[in-house]
Amino acid sequence: MAAPLHPTTGLPVVAMVGGGQLSRMTHQAAIALGQSLRVLAGSADEAAALVAADVRIGDHRSLPDLRALADGATVLTFDHEHVPTDHLHALQEAGTRVAPGPEALVHAQDKLVLRRALAEAGEPQPAWTEASTVHHVTAFADEVGWPVVLKTPRGGYDGKGVFVVDGPDEVADLLEAHGTLLVEERVAMVRELSAQVARSPFGQVAVWPVVETVQRNGVCAEVFAPAPGLSEELATSAQELAVRISDRLGVVGMLAVELFQTEHGVVVNELAMRPHNSGHWTIEGARTSQFEQHLRAVLDYPLGDTAMTAPVVVMANVLGGAAAEPDWAGPPLDERIHHFMAHWPDVKLHWYGKGQRRGRKLGHVTALGQDLAETRARAVAAARYLAEGEVDPAFAFDDEEH
Amino acid sequence: MAAPLHPTTGLPVVAMVGGGQLSRMTHQAAIALGQSLRVLAGSADEAAALVAADVRIGDHRSLPDLRALADGATVLTFDHEHVPTDHLHALQEAGTRVAPGPEALVHAQDKLVLRRALAEAGEPQPAWTEASTVHHVTAFADEVGWPVVLKTPRGGYDGKGVFVVDGPDEVADLLEAHGTLLVEERVAMVRELSAQVARSPFGQVAVWPVVETVQRNGVCAEVFAPAPGLSEELATSAQELAVRISDRLGVVGMLAVELFQTEHGVVVNELAMRPHNSGHWTIEGARTSQFEQHLRAVLDYPLGDTAMTAPVVVMANVLGGAAAEPDWAGPPLDERIHHFMAHWPDVKLHWYGKGQRRGRKLGHVTALGQDLAETRARAVAAARYLAEGEVDPAFAFDDEEH
Repeated sequence: MAAPLHPTTGLPVVAMVGGGQLSRMTHQAAIALGQSLRVLAGSADEAAALVAADVRIGDHRSLPDLRALADGATVLTFDHEHVPTDHLHALQEAGTRVAPGPEALVHAQDKLVLRRALAEAGEPQPAWTEASTVHHVTAFADEVGWPVVLKTPRGGYDGKGVFVVDGPDEVADLLEAHGTLLVEERVAMVRELSAQVARSPFGQVAVWPVVETVQRNGVCAEVFAPAPGLSEELATSAQELAVRISDRLGVVGMLAVELFQTEHGVVVNELAMRPHNSGHWTIEGARTSQFEQHLRAVLDYPLGDTAMTAPVVVMANVLGGAAAEPDWAGPPLDERIHHFMAHWPDVKLHWYGKGQRRGRKLGHVTALGQDLAETRARAVAAARYLAEGEVDPAFAFDDEEH
Repeated sequence: MAAPLHPTTGLPVVAMVGGGQLSRMTHQAAIALGQSLRVLAGSADEAAALVAADVRIGDHRSLPDLRALADGATVLTFDHEHVPTDHLHALQEAGTRVAPGPEALVHAQDKLVLRRALAEAGEPQPAWTEASTVHHVTAFADEVGWPVVLKTPRGGYDGKGVFVVDGPDEVADLLEAHGTLLVEERVAMVRELSAQVARSPFGQVAVWPVVETVQRNGVCAEVFAPAPGLSEELATSAQELAVRISDRLGVVGMLAVELFQTEHGVVVNELAMRPHNSGHWTIEGARTSQFEQHLRAVLDYPLGDTAMTAPVVVMANVLGGAAAEPDWAGPPLDERIHHFMAHWPDVKLHWYGKGQRRGRKLGHVTALGQDLAETRARAVAAARYLAEGEVDPAFAFDDEEH
């Protein structure tokens, strides 16, 4: 069965499940390719629903909604991992191209499935076990040492569903609430890295430079491209690891391999099979962005050049801060954007149009430069101003890892 | 009266008259700024109507359609020059912010009005006169020499409404068909240049490097940034000329000053007060694109950095060619895009999604590099392949001026 093309343009129609900022930025990339992203959003005020021409309001857990989304689309893809596997199989059986396919995607949906697959492949990962009793957790902790990290196998993101426990006391409650948990050693990490790769059904792969990600409270706050001071050997081995995983799992589209760097190398934290926060820097910082590349990959188009456009690129998230509080009395958003533009004419804004709430990813900014400290200072100050309505250099660098 | 903001996002709503590729690419830029362009399109299959969330189908000559477009919008702007001046005055009187305003815009709508204004300002332009009789034209031609160039004052674009006449024989028919004409000397030009400037209501201006434009059959085919071999003195004087014109006319938004370079300097050919084909290279080739800058300017936001991102940038239009003919039997568009991506992974595509017709601007490609000849070769070959379904280096450089 030939894949459907748009009746007016003769070009593919990519349908994306999810109406968040990843979908919004993918639509921007689709426009350049002559396409228009078809979006399944939960409501009309989601980030992508505000800007895309072809928006379906529906539920990603509803098979009828997914079927309606897929009807007439060339391929179905995702801006999150929450679509039930059975639905994806049902769509595939009805002839829909799903990218990534359910057999691959489950490794980004279920952390236990991922741990088993990596173990089988002999890839580096933290010591782990699957536990449903307190005894099992304490036995594991006796081996690797407290604290250990308990994770819900499914449904976690941005630090949700992850619990660092110092001793057996908290374990029983977590097990009762969540049933079976993944238990991992707490890795003595130097920092976090992300290796992104795009893979097409044809098997073509493209990698970007490995980046450093800085998390605050479990949420990505900053990304440095390339990861500063990373040896070429380790960078290459991380890229090769990402390519091996994408091949072995049969990923189609973008894959982000989140890594912990330790004294001995890298271990895999988790996977995302979609455009990822650690790749937002590629919009201005690489010849081909992760969003364009995701479209190319899921459509089995040849992949684009991933060369960087500047020696150093820093992305800083704008996380809802003081200015997102209901009682905020400072300059409103539009006025903050005025000031942002006046102060940082060379820092690029990406605002998602979402309702403002504390801690929410509301937008991001990207700065390009020659020197990490200088470039980072611009990006962080600009993001902080948008979030807090003020610039305070004293705490601009107050993060956990640096 | 405070300018309206979007009820969900708290950010401006820019309404653009016209649903073509300029509007399409402005919507892309709007998405990054947290906005969504509101578009007045003639039909649902226009380039911008295919991709924007807020599309009104209507007629740019209808005051009710314009009023409906302006209702709730922060500012009204244009992707073409064809809105009647009276309608713009009526909108302004009703409180709509119109950018550029009708008093400025008329200089891009009416070539006679422009010639008079430039004469009054003492700016360099070709010898010209306004003629409604054959005698008037021949008297002018006796002074400046045949051939002369006859232009309809209004409504021309892409070479339409421009007639080079070698002698009096053709003049009578043209005058009969068009009434009063602008008559200009045929400038002995070295090449064509374009100087783009953005200007905000606050009076801030930002210029990009002056570019060379290559026309074929009166249509822009290629743009080289910066204009190769242009002396710094001449480049600066062209930028200053563009700034002076934008200030004098009170332009708000993007202004493109199309120039003829002669042995003695530059003379003004015509103006466009909107994003312009000569600035498409800025999407990848400058820190701030003309589309983002147009939005910033019409919203009175501070303007963005215009620094180039590479030493040489070449934009090549994809003009409908053999592959746009109804009897085309070669690879269809989607297949040509596959091949394009395989051959030129580092050339960026912008496809507009319009119906394919010979000579129509269907898309453009942009290449960045270090060396003009090499960069141009990539861009031209890629654009030609998309248009003609074949690459022929023998005629890749077969243009009028080079």
